[in-house]
Amino acid sequence: MPTYTPPIRDMQFVMHEVLKVADDLKQIPKHADIDADTINAVLEEGGKFAAEVAFPLNISGDTEGCTIDQTTHKVTTPKGFKEAYRQYIDGGWAALACDPEYGGQGLPYVVNGMFYEMLNSANQAWTMYPGLTHGAYAALETHGTPEQKATYLPKMTSGEWTGTMCLTEPHCGTDLGLMRTKAEPQADGTYKITGNKIFISAGEHDMTDNIIHLVLARLPDAPPGIKGISLFIVPKFHVNADGSLGERNGIYCGGLEHKMGIHGNATCQMVLENAVGTIVGQANKGMQGMFVMMNAARLGVGNQSLGLTEVAFQSALAYAKDRIQMRSLSGTKAKDKPADPIIVHPDVRKMLMTARAYADGGRALQVYCSMLLEKEHNHPDEKVRKDAGEMLALLTPIAKAFLTDNGHIATNACMQVFGGHGFIKEWGMEQFVRDNRINMIYEGTNTIQSLDLLGRKVLGNNGATLKKFGKLIGKLVEEEGVNEKMSEFITPVAILGDQMTKFTTEVGFKGFQNPDEVGAAAVDYLRVAGHLVFGYFFARMAQVALREIAAGSTDPFYTAKLQTARFYFAKLFPETATLMRTARTGSKVLMDTDAALA
Amino acid sequence: MPTYTPPIRDMQFVMHEVLKVADDLKQIPKHADIDADTINAVLEEGGKFAAEVAFPLNISGDTEGCTIDQTTHKVTTPKGFKEAYRQYIDGGWAALACDPEYGGQGLPYVVNGMFYEMLNSANQAWTMYPGLTHGAYAALETHGTPEQKATYLPKMTSGEWTGTMCLTEPHCGTDLGLMRTKAEPQADGTYKITGNKIFISAGEHDMTDNIIHLVLARLPDAPPGIKGISLFIVPKFHVNADGSLGERNGIYCGGLEHKMGIHGNATCQMVLENAVGTIVGQANKGMQGMFVMMNAARLGVGNQSLGLTEVAFQSALAYAKDRIQMRSLSGTKAKDKPADPIIVHPDVRKMLMTARAYADGGRALQVYCSMLLEKEHNHPDEKVRKDAGEMLALLTPIAKAFLTDNGHIATNACMQVFGGHGFIKEWGMEQFVRDNRINMIYEGTNTIQSLDLLGRKVLGNNGATLKKFGKLIGKLVEEEGVNEKMSEFITPVAILGDQMTKFTTEVGFKGFQNPDEVGAAAVDYLRVAGHLVFGYFFARMAQVALREIAAGSTDPFYTAKLQTARFYFAKLFPETATLMRTARTGSKVLMDTDAALA
Repeated sequence: MPTYTPPIRDMQFVMHEVLKVADDLKQIPKHADIDADTINAVLEEGGKFAAEVAFPLNISGDTEGCTIDQTTHKVTTPKGFKEAYRQYIDGGWAALACDPEYGGQGLPYVVNGMFYEMLNSANQAWTMYPGLTHGAYAALETHGTPEQKATYLPKMTSGEWTGTMCLTEPHCGTDLGLMRTKAEPQADGTYKITGNKIFISAGEHDMTDNIIHLVLARLPDAPPGIKGISLFIVPKFHVNADGSLGERNGIYCGGLEHKMGIHGNATCQMVLENAVGTIVGQANKGMQGMFVMMNAARLGVGNQSLGLTEVAFQSALAYAKDRIQMRSLSGTKAKDKPADPIIVHPDVRKMLMTARAYADGGRALQVYCSMLLEKEHNHPDEKVRKDAGEMLALLTPIAKAFLTDNGHIATNACMQVFGGHGFIKEWGMEQFVRDNRINMIYEGTNTIQSLDLLGRKVLGNNGATLKKFGKLIGKLVEEEGVNEKMSEFITPVAILGDQMTKFTTEVGFKGFQNPDEVGAAAVDYLRVAGHLVFGYFFARMAQVALREIAAGSTDPFYTAKLQTARFYFAKLFPETATLMRTARTGSKVLMDTDAALA
Repeated sequence: MPTYTPPIRDMQFVMHEVLKVADDLKQIPKHADIDADTINAVLEEGGKFAAEVAFPLNISGDTEGCTIDQTTHKVTTPKGFKEAYRQYIDGGWAALACDPEYGGQGLPYVVNGMFYEMLNSANQAWTMYPGLTHGAYAALETHGTPEQKATYLPKMTSGEWTGTMCLTEPHCGTDLGLMRTKAEPQADGTYKITGNKIFISAGEHDMTDNIIHLVLARLPDAPPGIKGISLFIVPKFHVNADGSLGERNGIYCGGLEHKMGIHGNATCQMVLENAVGTIVGQANKGMQGMFVMMNAARLGVGNQSLGLTEVAFQSALAYAKDRIQMRSLSGTKAKDKPADPIIVHPDVRKMLMTARAYADGGRALQVYCSMLLEKEHNHPDEKVRKDAGEMLALLTPIAKAFLTDNGHIATNACMQVFGGHGFIKEWGMEQFVRDNRINMIYEGTNTIQSLDLLGRKVLGNNGATLKKFGKLIGKLVEEEGVNEKMSEFITPVAILGDQMTKFTTEVGFKGFQNPDEVGAAAVDYLRVAGHLVFGYFFARMAQVALREIAAGSTDPFYTAKLQTARFYFAKLFPETATLMRTARTGSKVLMDTDAALA
């Protein structure tokens, strides 16, 4: 069975010792009173919910899955899911980072982010029911009318209602411009919406009285492509003026998908038949609201893989200490046992440390992104808001793709630690691999993320935002350039920073002549950028650890951080050399393959 | 739905044009009459069986799985599996490479190998029922008494009975020295065997009247560890002197495992209660017979991943041509359609070509290994037999680990081509990923393979066999060193060959001082060695293609081979740079992690 203890100390380290979030929050009026103790107390409690309520339902939820009654279109979630959700809203967890205007607790995004990391470790499939609500909430908060906000946000804040994103159709996922769902304007200002959506996570379930669907559709006179898409609120049940539930709306679940993983989450085919909705934002500008949801979802997906990486690591570590098999190559370690615990073997340590390093790096990036989101939305200084928004835009595809690819590597490595037992469902390790696999696909495949990063976020502004990230590295080099002990952590990052500058210029130049060069380099480019970002955070984590040790700390926690950083730079970071090399071989070798792909 | 057409032309290319197997077979008396046409004809027919009989049962077999009646211990395989097996033995397929002495067709191993590639593409779970028999057959053929052979081999040849390998126990997989199953000698020369085995593939099923278990167990006076292990034949039903079936033996299936993949194969917990068996080979020398089975099984596992790589490639290619989504970055390609087929996107091509290249390289290695096996067993010249055996010993861990890791990369890439649909069971792509995942684990995890390669096969003889492989590269350089057109294919292999020599010396030197250095470098080392081997074969495939084109051929098949080789050297081979770099960072950074792994 997997093991999970919320990594509170690791979270505190990143938040308070490395990134000093409380200092930044003091600059933001609505959070000026938040201190580290408050954050820690909330996360302690949140960790208990994750470990004690959500985690025990993970394997059973996977085994049982969701079921649909094809006559009533009702979906039943696995045993215990509904009750856990009731505890979740009773505990006020749904409201954590929501606006107090709608009944929220108004805590910073970073608290919600770390809480969700723990929920994702505990049970990704369950967590998607409340998780999807946040994207819908954000889109409504940004683009909804006052009336829409008043009608829906309080119940979404309390968690009494959940939300969905209805984007994909059978013939279009990435390419939403091909969308066919139609919205017919009615005399009363509402719209009648008809069409078929697929892959709608948490599209139907038995946890709440109502579900608020945010649906993309096309008006009759809409221009073709994504410039003709509008966003609508389509509630499962209409809401009366007094807030009570009215008639059932014409949106229902036509079937559930059979999937590789996240079995506990209902992935629905949604049928809309003259479903009545109201428009969110302007006609034909639905992509704006969609991107609010999508950017939130992308950070959320990265966080899902962070959670899975952490729980896979903890479970494999426990097994590696317990399972005895063979003797250490360098001589017997456990003389009292017939064999040594497998943690004595170098490659077992390599697999474990791979997961540990990707969890630590991923957590730093997630906290950093949460704070950028906070500044973008709530900082009093417009320039800070703008800069934070740009940096977040740069880092979002990295947080999505790099963390989910790392989750793939890490969960597979941790499963491998279990040998044959890793393949057996009861041990729970193969579920982490299966659940993680969707994270590399949904909310924009990782290829799409890489094109977003290189094409739009980097080359789109001539590398200006990337250069700003480079300045953070420059600042660290300035601070620590003469500190010999920091050299092993700073030097590789500084070198890669320089290489990235050249690499970016090269790709930009080639892409200018042939756009396929961008498509050919993008996936490799994103992974290099991911390591640049991780390398920077590992250097900063090492900086804090070295300072604490220099100041006399004997807490092995700091030694652990140094060991992890050293492992990262020795064993994971060097793939950047190959990635830049393969990217430089360009697009010709990919595109001149018509005979091989005949 | 997945698509599969047996890649007969690709097989013929490797067998007849690149490796010229018929020429080698002429040197071997028992195959002197075999020509290319015979091989091709058998494979054509075999391909029909794979594509038309086994393939249609792949998804249904996964969905249905195997079931056990806990009262009778009877196991039922998925619908259609039994009937397909009947067709298989009626067609004489079980007997393909078996000795005519026992009713076999006596065809070369390479024919059976290519036939099994197709079966593995079609249905890995089904293929394991006949597949496991080959290992048991080989162990009996090598170490059995004439009586044992006469009793069991004819029925195993015809496929009327299947075989198993019963090695693993709950507390020991890798470390067979910890084995507890006991064998008590009886007055009549037989043994009564008692113990529990787990993870026994095809351990019980409804396809045949009898199952011949090859069981590792320990005699009462056996020395501890693997030097005290003996091998026994334990039939499910005893066999009377006249060949008819006698009483039920005390070996039965206690339960089936719930697994990530290969659901159609019964992975059994086997209980032995005073099961009567006869010893195979000498007492306490059971590991010899075990290794005969194991080496066959390791090549077989590599072949499983080759099969999955090929079918995943074909399926993803068909989808990429059919699915339209977005426009090409370099301008509209399909003007008559609302979007371009996704094969226009460079990264989609990269994912497809990754699978294609790993299939082509893997097939070359499999054919090469089959021919070495042939020479080792059947060549009239003792020196040839010995050399072939040594080279095969070197290449076996590469064929197992490199091909299965590549299968992981390739099946995941092909699943990714499908976007969200890749995650949905009905499309069949995620099954290839799940089925492949066990290949990296069973018959010795890929870490164990890497230790076998580096520790035993390379450093164990001071790199002598590796140097022989280097000579093959040297010969190619000599032949083609002045051919400018070959330079792009030969130069990287020649350079890597030189680097490997230094790299091996370094690791050997460090390992001499500290054995953990071998454990730390082994996995990276195996992957570099895999690319050296693949690089050599890709250069030889390019050589043939260039010659054909120079001779006037306009067959696009040869262009395809050049494109694939170019892709391989540009995008896949360069990871060797990182692998050697990370291996060189050594064991300290792995072993000094006690705080991080506390």
